[in-house]
This record gives sequence, structure tokens and C-alpha cells, in this order.
Amino acid sequence: MAEIAVSRRVRRTPFSAGVEAAGVSAYSVYNRMLLPAAFAGLEADYHHLKAAVQVWDVSVERQVEVTGPDADRVMQMLTPRDLTRIAEDQCAYIPVVDCYGGMLNDPVALKVGEDRWWISIADSDLLFWVKGIATGMNLEVRVREPDVSPLAVQGPLAEELMMRVFGSSVQDIRFFRYKRLAFNGRNLVVARSGYSKQGGFEIYVEGGDIGMPLWQALFEAGHNLDVQAGCPNLIERIEGGLLSYGNDMTIENTPFECGLGRYCHLDAGHDFVGRAALEEVAATGPDQLIRPISILGDRLPSPVEIWPLTQDGQPVGQVTSAAWSPDFNVNVSIGMVEAAFWAPGTELEVHTAHGPFQARVEAEFWG
Amino acid sequence: MAEIAVSRRVRRTPFSAGVEAAGVSAYSVYNRMLLPAAFAGLEADYHHLKAAVQVWDVSVERQVEVTGPDADRVMQMLTPRDLTRIAEDQCAYIPVVDCYGGMLNDPVALKVGEDRWWISIADSDLLFWVKGIATGMNLEVRVREPDVSPLAVQGPLAEELMMRVFGSSVQDIRFFRYKRLAFNGRNLVVARSGYSKQGGFEIYVEGGDIGMPLWQALFEAGHNLDVQAGCPNLIERIEGGLLSYGNDMTIENTPFECGLGRYCHLDAGHDFVGRAALEEVAATGPDQLIRPISILGDRLPSPVEIWPLTQDGQPVGQVTSAAWSPDFNVNVSIGMVEAAFWAPGTELEVHTAHGPFQARVEAEFWG
Repeated sequence: MAEIAVSRRVRRTPFSAGVEAAGVSAYSVYNRMLLPAAFAGLEADYHHLKAAVQVWDVSVERQVEVTGPDADRVMQMLTPRDLTRIAEDQCAYIPVVDCYGGMLNDPVALKVGEDRWWISIADSDLLFWVKGIATGMNLEVRVREPDVSPLAVQGPLAEELMMRVFGSSVQDIRFFRYKRLAFNGRNLVVARSGYSKQGGFEIYVEGGDIGMPLWQALFEAGHNLDVQAGCPNLIERIEGGLLSYGNDMTIENTPFECGLGRYCHLDAGHDFVGRAALEEVAATGPDQLIRPISILGDRLPSPVEIWPLTQDGQPVGQVTSAAWSPDFNVNVSIGMVEAAFWAPGTELEVHTAHGPFQARVEAEFWG
Repeated sequence: MAEIAVSRRVRRTPFSAGVEAAGVSAYSVYNRMLLPAAFAGLEADYHHLKAAVQVWDVSVERQVEVTGPDADRVMQMLTPRDLTRIAEDQCAYIPVVDCYGGMLNDPVALKVGEDRWWISIADSDLLFWVKGIATGMNLEVRVREPDVSPLAVQGPLAEELMMRVFGSSVQDIRFFRYKRLAFNGRNLVVARSGYSKQGGFEIYVEGGDIGMPLWQALFEAGHNLDVQAGCPNLIERIEGGLLSYGNDMTIENTPFECGLGRYCHLDAGHDFVGRAALEEVAATGPDQLIRPISILGDRLPSPVEIWPLTQDGQPVGQVTSAAWSPDFNVNVSIGMVEAAFWAPGTELEVHTAHGPFQARVEAEFWG
């Protein structure tokens, strides 16, 4: 594969020095910023993530900060999820849709103060959408990207490592909740969350200057926990059914197609962009749905483009993410499948870059 | 440097097969799509671009299509440039700013029909901004990304090659104007434009299916013109003073700081987002300005982050793009310099990743 070309436009992070010292071997670009994609290798990283603890530079989860008297109103315009039900210390996964109900992003929203929100984004310039809506509606808010770079600590030993750096109160943080904890005299948002199923935390590092001190503190505290630098792992996240915006869903998909209907509180009656479109989909149900799909046979390389799904030669959907799972001994994948074919056990054919393979719709993800 | 990790999220283009067969050695990511960054190497590509003709996959210049009864109004809301002065066949470089006058993108707008525009974008999700403004203002337009992927033909032999494929009428296309020319029975927008100073054309390839046929037709027609696959060249574009959004300017900069004041038609009186902010800047003039800067001494590697500029130890600006120029035998660079220091001939110090170097503000770019 080709090298990655870098410049200021593809932004480095507060942790890049640590990431490179740890031997990053592949990078992706996410929100116009470097995202480590492999260190020892996809499978070695995978086994280690499930056994020990990793520190992930996920600075690419940029924040959109919304502040001002109309902040709550703007936030509610963005999503079908009823934000009045969100607790003060909650991390709220919110589908954000356009006027056609198409997914623009699937971020996590945190109310970090009175009239002050952070939206921790997936891979699209949600800042432009929020700013555009606020400007177009003439609402009184300031929308900007603050100097906040999340660092994730993931894996079965994550809690032990976090306690060594932040103290025992990390134990009291419930899943998808956060507390403010001190590091270097700064109070950081620390949430029990992250893009793996192995358990762990995300530290919203406010101020790039404390990035490397925190990185080093974690590695020093974890020297006897086999702590290593890692990154979101393709195999593990497919096993766990963690969706990736841009891979498994795009602006062409509604939240219902993505299995996010439970976050569409249409009965709440609040005003949001896309309400009419989503009500229409809700009335009939989606025509296609994201499903776990096993691809049978030998180990396949992961796709760089969609792989079409057929049954008896007729198109019925597409695989959007796939990887060989050493633990489940099968090619695990995520796909979008039409209604008549999404029942568990349905046998399909998938047309990969390496030829056609038999595939099966599963009842559940693997993780 | 690390490899680039690919997936559906980092989109391939209609020309990727050709690019890879031609031996792309480095990729960047631009608008969440693969952008070739080198073939034979930065300097070899540079010399060839100035001597012959290259075909560039610039699919990453995605189009934002705005259609509908309010299309003209939405377009005019986006930019201080007075679009009523734009001719039917014109390519209009337009600064797009937010309510603070900060640059969101510096695209080229084409009126491709009645109530129908294409905006050929730099590296930010301008679609989200346009859609947000239109949605927030409740305007009657459809905003979408069409299946259009620009292919550039650049270099001194570009016109000769284009004539062989599109006929002699390519000669009649004036600079930053376009014609519709036939290929494979389709009428494509062909403009005399492109991200180099060597002359050439951009073909707005409508329909990915004709991407590789056109690629092949160009290479077959140009076999005795030394046609090669190429890409925007860092050295050549710095010599020519071609700015790069994300590198040389960001949302933190006004058009005036970027030297784009001539596109700010504040006297035209039209309504656009950011008018109040830009009027304020126009009244006093910008505090800093993009300038050509020579970095003296030996050949330097190109920066991956900004390089601070100082005079007598005081910060006075930053270098945002730099490369060794074989033709001018100096490190050419683009920087943002404060008012008191931007006069041609001003001697500064630049703090590179490789130590401090003497630098000099130039009167003109090199190309």
C-alpha cells in the first residue's frame, strides 16, 4: 500500500509524538486529522486489546462546542432524540439527520455546563451543519471547535490503569456517564465509554499542552499492566457491532436503517430537522437494515469498497465492513440488507474483490 | 512514514484503478477521498509537470450541487463575491465565510444551468454548510453531492492532448471559462483551469462509469507526448502561490488575510453570511497577510505542522507550506505575516522542525 502524505491540512494531535514513538505502522485520516490504524498489526493489536489495556489517540473525535442562550434549542434541532431526558452527567449517542432524514453524523453529546454542550463527532464536519442551522435560523449561540482531544483507555485492565492515574473515583463512573477528574491541576471530563466492547474510558483532554504528560503518566503507571499504544480495532469493532459513519452508514441512510430507531423519540413532539421525513419512515418501517453477516470460507482481506450481496443473482444489499476474526474463526462483517432478506439464517452470496463467497445473516453480533 | 489505511470511509475514485496501475507511491486524504500525492517522487513529478503533460485524479474536488427556485439566492448568501457579474460559462473562485468572516472553503462555483449550480470544493464539508443555511432559512433548494469527479490535464502539452481527445474547440475555451464537450456520447463540462501554473484543463466527469474510459483515452492519445499520471505538486503550487485550504488558511482567517479582498464585493450591497464581520475588517484592513517567503540555506523537508516566524525573538507569523525548489534553488514557502513585517525584503527567522533558519518576505511568488 502507498505511504500517507502529511501536511498541516492533515492535522497532527497532541499525542502524535507518543504514537510515533510507539511505532504506529498505519494511519488513517479522520476529520482531517491523523488516526492511528495499526501498531504491531491488526491481529496482534486485537489480541492485546482483549487481554490487557491500550491507550488510544482518538483526538479525531473532535468536539463541536455549542454555547449561548439558544444552545439547548440548537442541540434539540439536531436530533430526533429527546434531549430533555438526558442527565447532567450523561453521554448521549445522538443520530443527527438532514431534512430528508439522512444521517449526517452519529456523535455523542455531553452537556458540559449551563447553556454549554460538546458534541463528540464521527467523521464529518458537523461543525458546518450546526453553524449553518444556527446561522440560518438566526439563533444566539457560538459554535466552535475547542482545544479538546479525547484519549481512550480500553481493555480489561483499563479500570485498574485509570485508578492509578485518576484515583479510585473512576470506579464510580457508570457506563456512558462522566465525572470531572483532576490531572495536572486541570479538571478533565472522564467518561466510561469508548469504541470497543472491552470496557474502558475516554478522557476529554482539554488543552493540548497536557496531552503528552497524560500519555506518559498512563504508560508509567501501567508498566506492569502490559499497557500498549493501540487504536480502534477493525476486527473487534465488527465483532461488537460498533458502526462506523462513512463505512456502515452515510447520508443516504436513515437512523432506522442503521438500527437506531430507539433514539428517534418522535412522540416527544419536539421540533428537529428531518421530523417529517423520519415520521414517514417510522410509519412503514425501513426498507433495509444493518445486520451482522458471516462470510464463510477462508480468511479474506478487508474491503476497501462495498461488496454487493445477492440471492439467486438478485441484489439484496451490500457488505460495508469485514475482517477475519481469529476468535470466531470466520469472516465477520457488517452489511445493509433489504427487508425480505434480513432474517437470521438467510443465506446470501457476497461478491468480494477476491471472488464470490457464501454469506449468512446472523441474529446477533459476535462481541 | 506509515502506510495509509483504507476502507470505504476513505473513498476510492472512478480513476483509482488507473492511479494504482500508474504506480502511486503516496496518498493523502481530501474530502474523505483518496488524493494521489506522489508517483515517481515529488521532484521527478515536478520536473515532468513543467515539461510535458500530466493527468491528475482530482475527484476529491467534490461538487456541491444546488438546484431549485432559491438556488441563486442560496449561492449569493454563501459569498461576498457578487455573483450577478458572473458569466454563464464562467468558473468563479469564491471565498465562503461564516458569520465571523472566517473562511469555510475557497471553492470554484459554476452556474451549470437555470437554477442549478456546482460548487467545486476544497477540503471541508461545504455540503453541510450550504444545506444548513438552506434548511435554517427554509429556502427551496436541493443540495447534494452529484456523481461528478474532476480529472485535470495539466502541463505545457495539455492543450495538445486535450485537442486529440475533445477536438479543436478546446482551444476556444478561455481561462476560467468552460464549454460542454462530448466524450462517449456524454456532454462534459471542460474548463480551462486547474491547480497548477503550467496551464491546462479540468474535465468534470459526470458519471463514474466513464472515468476509466476517459483516463485510458487520454493516455492512448498522449502516448507520444510523454503523458504521465500526476497530482497537484507541492513545490509547483508554492512557487505559483496557489493557496491550500487547511494548509495556508483555515476558519480562523478572513478572505482579506488570504489576499482575497478582490473577491469581496461589499459595495454590491447583496445579503450574505458574514457581511458585518467583513465590513469591519475592510474598514481597517487585515492584521496579517499571506506572503511568499524564502527560507535561506540548505534544502529542508516540508513541514507537517506550522513553523513559527519571529523577528528579534518576537512572534510575527507562521509558515504554513514549504518545499525545496530545484528551479529557484531555495526553500519556497507560504506564510501568514503580521502587518508590520510583511513588507518585501523583511528579514525574519523561521523555527522549523530542523532548527532555526533565516527567512525573507518576497514581493512576488515565484511561478
